[in-house]
Amino acid sequence: MTRSTAPDDVTGRPTSRDGGRRLSRRGFLGGVGAAGAGLGIAAAVAATRAEAVSSPGSDVAAKIDFHGRHQAGIGTASQDRLAFAAFDVTTTDRAALRRLLRDWTAAAAAMTEGALVPGPSHEPVAPPADTGEAVGLPPSGLTVTIGFGPSLFDDRFGLADRRPAALAPLPPLPGDELDDLRSGGDIAIQACSNDPQVAFHVIRNLARIASGSAVMRWSQLGFGRTSSTSDGQSTPRNLFGFKDGTRNIHGEDRSAMADHVWVHDADQPWMQGGTYLVSRRIRMLIESWDRDFLADQESIFGRFKTSGAPLTGHHELDDPDYAATSPDGRPVIPDGSHIRLASPENNGGLRILRRGFSYTDGMDPNGLLDAGLFFICFQDDPQSFVTLQRKLGAHDALNEYIKHTGSGLFACPTGLPDRSRTWADHLFA
Amino acid sequence: MTRSTAPDDVTGRPTSRDGGRRLSRRGFLGGVGAAGAGLGIAAAVAATRAEAVSSPGSDVAAKIDFHGRHQAGIGTASQDRLAFAAFDVTTTDRAALRRLLRDWTAAAAAMTEGALVPGPSHEPVAPPADTGEAVGLPPSGLTVTIGFGPSLFDDRFGLADRRPAALAPLPPLPGDELDDLRSGGDIAIQACSNDPQVAFHVIRNLARIASGSAVMRWSQLGFGRTSSTSDGQSTPRNLFGFKDGTRNIHGEDRSAMADHVWVHDADQPWMQGGTYLVSRRIRMLIESWDRDFLADQESIFGRFKTSGAPLTGHHELDDPDYAATSPDGRPVIPDGSHIRLASPENNGGLRILRRGFSYTDGMDPNGLLDAGLFFICFQDDPQSFVTLQRKLGAHDALNEYIKHTGSGLFACPTGLPDRSRTWADHLFA
Repeated sequence: MTRSTAPDDVTGRPTSRDGGRRLSRRGFLGGVGAAGAGLGIAAAVAATRAEAVSSPGSDVAAKIDFHGRHQAGIGTASQDRLAFAAFDVTTTDRAALRRLLRDWTAAAAAMTEGALVPGPSHEPVAPPADTGEAVGLPPSGLTVTIGFGPSLFDDRFGLADRRPAALAPLPPLPGDELDDLRSGGDIAIQACSNDPQVAFHVIRNLARIASGSAVMRWSQLGFGRTSSTSDGQSTPRNLFGFKDGTRNIHGEDRSAMADHVWVHDADQPWMQGGTYLVSRRIRMLIESWDRDFLADQESIFGRFKTSGAPLTGHHELDDPDYAATSPDGRPVIPDGSHIRLASPENNGGLRILRRGFSYTDGMDPNGLLDAGLFFICFQDDPQSFVTLQRKLGAHDALNEYIKHTGSGLFACPTGLPDRSRTWADHLFA
Repeated sequence: MTRSTAPDDVTGRPTSRDGGRRLSRRGFLGGVGAAGAGLGIAAAVAATRAEAVSSPGSDVAAKIDFHGRHQAGIGTASQDRLAFAAFDVTTTDRAALRRLLRDWTAAAAAMTEGALVPGPSHEPVAPPADTGEAVGLPPSGLTVTIGFGPSLFDDRFGLADRRPAALAPLPPLPGDELDDLRSGGDIAIQACSNDPQVAFHVIRNLARIASGSAVMRWSQLGFGRTSSTSDGQSTPRNLFGFKDGTRNIHGEDRSAMADHVWVHDADQPWMQGGTYLVSRRIRMLIESWDRDFLADQESIFGRFKTSGAPLTGHHELDDPDYAATSPDGRPVIPDGSHIRLASPENNGGLRILRRGFSYTDGMDPNGLLDAGLFFICFQDDPQSFVTLQRKLGAHDALNEYIKHTGSGLFACPTGLPDRSRTWADHLFA
C-alpha cells in the first residue's frame, strides 16, 4: 500500500458537453418521431442530431465523463442505483477477448453519454444494435466501471504476465458462507446510475455484445445507495436502519484518494492509477435484527440509530471517542462494536472507500426476506479489505445478524484518456 | 361488468397538509438530533414536532392521501418503483386476523404520510416499532394498496359469506407456466413510491407486524414503471424497448374509471367502489428478443419501436387504423399483433387499467437474465382480464418471447374515508 499525497485529478468530473458525435438516445427519438416513424426506416438523419440539452444539476440529467485519468464510478459521487454483473469468458480465443473488450468500451462510452450502443439501429432486417429500453432517457449520471478478476490471468489467454501480484484470490475469511454461484468471475462490470433502467440497460447490452465470448456468471441489482462518497451527500441508512460509513472517503479528498484508493508504483502499468474492487453480498437477517432492542442495536453499531451520532457524541459527524468509559468503567463504544473494529484509529490508519447498495431479492426458502447490503469497496491493495474483514468477521457483534454470501475481487484498470484507447489495450497493447 | 358513467372522485388526490398528528420521519429526526442523540433516549418531544414542509411538485416530496373514496395506488399517477408482496394467513384465529388488518391499516396510513410505524420507537429495552431505514426520507409519493385473495374466504375465518362472487380463482389460461410459489396468496400488498427504499420499508414492516399471524408467500420488486396512468405522464418503455400501453386508462378519466375499473352494484358492500387486481409475473426472454429483426419486433407489437406510433400512424398517440391494408392486401397492423389483439375496438370496448413494472431478479440457471414485466391491472370484473388473456395467450405473436410465471387475483376493497375505519371493517364489521 502506498502512502503518497501526490496531487491527483479525481472525481468531481465536469459534466461533458460535447454532443453530436454519437447517436444520442434523445436526439435519436426526436429525429425519428418526425422523419422515420411512419416508415419505420430512415433515421440516418437522427445520427447527426445534436445532443439534447440537459438541465445541469438534475439527477437524471447529469452526464459523467467516461474518459479521464481514473475510471468513473469510483471517486464519483455515488449514484442512487446499481446494476452489477460478473462475467466468465467462454471463448479461448485471445483475439475474441480483445475484440470483446474493445466493443464493450465503445458501448460503455456511448451509453455513458446517453447515446445508443453503436451499430445499426434502423435496419428492418437486422436486430437493432441497442435493445432500446433506454431510448429517450437522459444520461442519468451513468458510470460504467470494469474490473478484471484473478481468473482472467490463468493460462487461457497468455495473460499470466499481466497479472498484478496483489490480484490473488481472497483468502477464506471468518464469517464466509459464500455461494460459488454468487462469487468470482473473470470480469466485473459495475453500472451505477440515478435511473435503474439506465443501469440495467448497460448490463443487458454488454451481456448481449458478449454473446459467444462471455456469459454472465452472476448479477446483482442494488436499489438504494448506502454510502456517501462525496462532500455534498448525506449518509443514507442501510437496511438495519442505521447510518453506516459516516467517515467514508469522499472523492473530493484527493489526499485520501491518493493514500488509500489509487494504486501508485504499480507492478503492471495498466494498474497505475487503478484500484482494487472487492464486492461482498452481505445478507442481513433483518427479521432477527428487528426483534433486537434499540439499545442493543446501538451498542452493536456504536452509533445512535436515529441521529447516527457515535455513542460518545451528539451529532453524526462528531468524532468517536474510543477512550471514553461509562461510570462502571466499560467503554462507551463497546469493544465489539462495528465502528470501533472498523475505525482507522484502531487499524493503523487503514481506510477503504465504501460504495455499497441495499438489495432485496425476494424471499429465501424459509419465507424470510433475502435482503441486505451489496458491499463494494475500493482500495489500493486488497489486503486492506482482508485486514478489516479478518477483524470484523471474528469479533464484530454484527455477525449475529449478517452472512457474507458472495464475494468478488477485481482489479480496476486506470482510466482511458480518450477515444483512442480501449479496455483491451490494458491487457493486449 | 357495469357501464355507469356516474361521476366519481378519483385519483389526483390532493396533497395532504395535515401534519403534527403523527411521528413524522423527518420531524422525528430533527427532534432527536438535538435533544436525544447524546442520550439515546428522550424524544417524546419529537412526537409533537410538526411535519417537515415538503416542496410540492417534487417527486419524493409528494404525499398521497391514504384515505378517500377509493384506495390510492390504483387511479393514482404511477410512481416509479414497486414493492409487492402476497401473504398467507397462518393464524386460524379470527380475532388475530382482524387485529392484523387493523394494525396494518394504522401502519400503512402512517407510512404514507412519511411517519413512523406507530408504537414505541425509543425504548432502549424494546425493539423499535419502525425498522428505521426510511427515517429522514420524505413520503416519496407512497401508496399502500390492499387486496384479498379468493383463499381468504375459505372456511378458516368464517368469511365465506363475505366473498364477492367474482372473486374466484382465475381459470387456467393459454400460455400459463405458473410457479405456485410465485402465485396466489390470501392477501396482497402493493406499495408504490418514487423511492424504492420507502416502498421496501412498507413490505418489510407489514411482514414484521404480521409475525405470528401471516407469512409472506412471495414478493416482487419492480424497478421501473411501464405504464402511464395519468395525463401528465409519458409512456415508458418496457424491457423489449417498446412503448406499450399507450392507450391506457388514466386516473383523471372519471368516465373510463367508472366504466371499467371501479365496481358498482357490488354484491358485497365492501367492494362498492373497489376493484379487482390481477398480477402476472411475465418473464421476457430478452436474449431471444434481442436477436429478432427490428421489422419483426415492430410487427409483433403493431407499433414502431422508436416513436411508439402504431404501424398505421406517425405519432405515438395516433389512433391505430386496424382496417388499413398494405398494397399486397394484408393488414398493416398484423392479425397477431399485440395491439390489435388487446385493443378495445376488437374486444367489444373492453378496457383494463394497466399499472405494471419492469423487474429483474438476476439470472436463471441457464445464465439468462430473469427479467420482464410484473404486470398489474385493475378492472371491475376479473373476467375482463380473462377475456383478454385467453385471446392474447392463444394468438399473440409476442408469446414466443414471454412466459407467465406467476399469477394473482385480489379483490381490492373500497377506500377508507378516515381514521375511524380500518381494513378489518371490510370483513368483520
